[in-house]
Amino acid sequence: MKAYQRKLDIRNGCVDLSHGSGGRAMAQLISGLFHEAFGNEWLARGNDQSAFDVRAGRMVMTTDGYVVSPLFFPGGNIGSLAVHGTVNDIAMAGAKPLYLSASFIIEEGFRFADLKLIAESMGAAAREADVHIITGDTKVVERGKADGLFISTAGVGVVPDGLDLSAEKARVGDRVLISGTLGDHGVAIMSKRQNLAFETEIVSDSASLHDLVARMVQAGGRGIRLMRDPTRGGLAATLNEIAQQSNLGFHLLEEAIPVKPGVAAACELLGLDPLHVANEGKLVAIVAPEAAGAVLAAMRAHPLGRDAADIGEAVADDHHFVQMATSFGGGRIVDWLSGEQLPRIC
Amino acid sequence: MKAYQRKLDIRNGCVDLSHGSGGRAMAQLISGLFHEAFGNEWLARGNDQSAFDVRAGRMVMTTDGYVVSPLFFPGGNIGSLAVHGTVNDIAMAGAKPLYLSASFIIEEGFRFADLKLIAESMGAAAREADVHIITGDTKVVERGKADGLFISTAGVGVVPDGLDLSAEKARVGDRVLISGTLGDHGVAIMSKRQNLAFETEIVSDSASLHDLVARMVQAGGRGIRLMRDPTRGGLAATLNEIAQQSNLGFHLLEEAIPVKPGVAAACELLGLDPLHVANEGKLVAIVAPEAAGAVLAAMRAHPLGRDAADIGEAVADDHHFVQMATSFGGGRIVDWLSGEQLPRIC
Repeated sequence: MKAYQRKLDIRNGCVDLSHGSGGRAMAQLISGLFHEAFGNEWLARGNDQSAFDVRAGRMVMTTDGYVVSPLFFPGGNIGSLAVHGTVNDIAMAGAKPLYLSASFIIEEGFRFADLKLIAESMGAAAREADVHIITGDTKVVERGKADGLFISTAGVGVVPDGLDLSAEKARVGDRVLISGTLGDHGVAIMSKRQNLAFETEIVSDSASLHDLVARMVQAGGRGIRLMRDPTRGGLAATLNEIAQQSNLGFHLLEEAIPVKPGVAAACELLGLDPLHVANEGKLVAIVAPEAAGAVLAAMRAHPLGRDAADIGEAVADDHHFVQMATSFGGGRIVDWLSGEQLPRIC
Repeated sequence: MKAYQRKLDIRNGCVDLSHGSGGRAMAQLISGLFHEAFGNEWLARGNDQSAFDVRAGRMVMTTDGYVVSPLFFPGGNIGSLAVHGTVNDIAMAGAKPLYLSASFIIEEGFRFADLKLIAESMGAAAREADVHIITGDTKVVERGKADGLFISTAGVGVVPDGLDLSAEKARVGDRVLISGTLGDHGVAIMSKRQNLAFETEIVSDSASLHDLVARMVQAGGRGIRLMRDPTRGGLAATLNEIAQQSNLGFHLLEEAIPVKPGVAAACELLGLDPLHVANEGKLVAIVAPEAAGAVLAAMRAHPLGRDAADIGEAVADDHHFVQMATSFGGGRIVDWLSGEQLPRIC
């Protein structure tokens, strides 16, 4: 006899406070919805932690909270985004992502049907990235004390021997490579939020980059100084951070930076700069000049790096400025924003 | 020149949406408040992930979300609780906790001063447990879209060679040991929430149990089948889960179960059963009968196991019932609750 045999009414039901209580209702939600979506032997064991074997070497750990609004958007939802984001933070260290954890904070009244869709997207994104969601937690708060659903994922991965990518490793003369067009995710969210319709729907670039990274590492080895995914704050924030941490500046060439025409048009309409807009399936790599050609070629040979481009170089600059030669022949400082441009973009 | 030189006004300031934007304000919050409180070389490197070396062997990973209300309570706050809870979930596998991640979801308008207190408690709890908070994330949502602060922590630890504790490993005849008095955490939260005053203040038992666990493993070795911390749902939920997962039942002796007189009185007043109330610094161990004496002695020799007790045994039962001989000479089924007794207790 199982004590929680009655099935969840996923079609019509909602999460209530009992689903966060540690009792039968929670066990039912976890086994009936999350285990089904994530299905793996770790969760089936039903422990508060999961074990795995490691070989001696270097590992990385990362975490991210997801509060994106709306929860569903063109190209994904908060679930797929949470998996992609955490996989990417691991991949940016050149590491192979292995295991994820997921913590759900759910507002009372959230529909099971939506939670199931989101969990299934997480499961699918995890399988696609060859990672396993091996442990999790579910909390429920009263109506009005959250906004539908927040997810925090953490992840671990293993770093290839001898690789040590880090924010302070850029050197003067290094090339700045990006893996594709900028601004797709942020503009997809904003269009959905503001109910804008464009001729061609703008779709989030949300994707797992670990495989692209593996090819780049194969091609560039230690010529790759560091990688970053330009999420919140966009490319501008990412390069300004690296400039500070590596104690140098950057010179970019605007005409080399790929932006989709629809995204550029939407940015004009919304008063946004594509360099400040979040991406969720793009990376910036700072690469030694002698390795840049091979790394760029490897990127372009990968479906997620088709539009990869060399957009500039690292320069000596005590002020850590990111400067850009504009398409009109002028120049400008690409500053990072001090305030908030796009709240809850991820 | 550092781009974020202006100091946070911690005394009077509040978190606003800009602190979740990925821009300068966020960098300032992270470096000025979190790095200061957690201070370690990993965070100082400023990457979106942190690396560490491992030796070959078995590791565990866990996660928990914290939504406790109120955020500050007798014996701790959401920060110390988040560290203790994650350390304990790792320790319940018999593992040594090593590294934690922390994801903060903050409501706009949350006071820096409170955030600093909470971060400092996390830092102190981490140092005390000899773990490092090596990576984190900060998101801010609009006023009214969260309830002050939610924290999700994840953690990894390393399992001693040859140890494999798991929920399905209890055997008929095993002893049920608990490390101390039940119900302290839940009653401390409820008294604070309902503004009850007792003659002696009831204080949460929130604490890291990894050191107690290490002593128990030393004393009991493979005689220890499994350990669990009876948090949400209390001892009742924990034993019912184990009964199902190990396909047996339990017989408990009420008079052997330690409950503080103040907690027992408060439970009567509030209509609660101490067996259903959450603990945050207690563990249940299911131990082979031949090892139980040595494990219990090791527990009692540790400050966090002073009141440890042998409270019953595992029995053959196809219905997976947890039964208890009451102090009055009767018997009752200790069921787990289907609904919610104490929302947001952790």
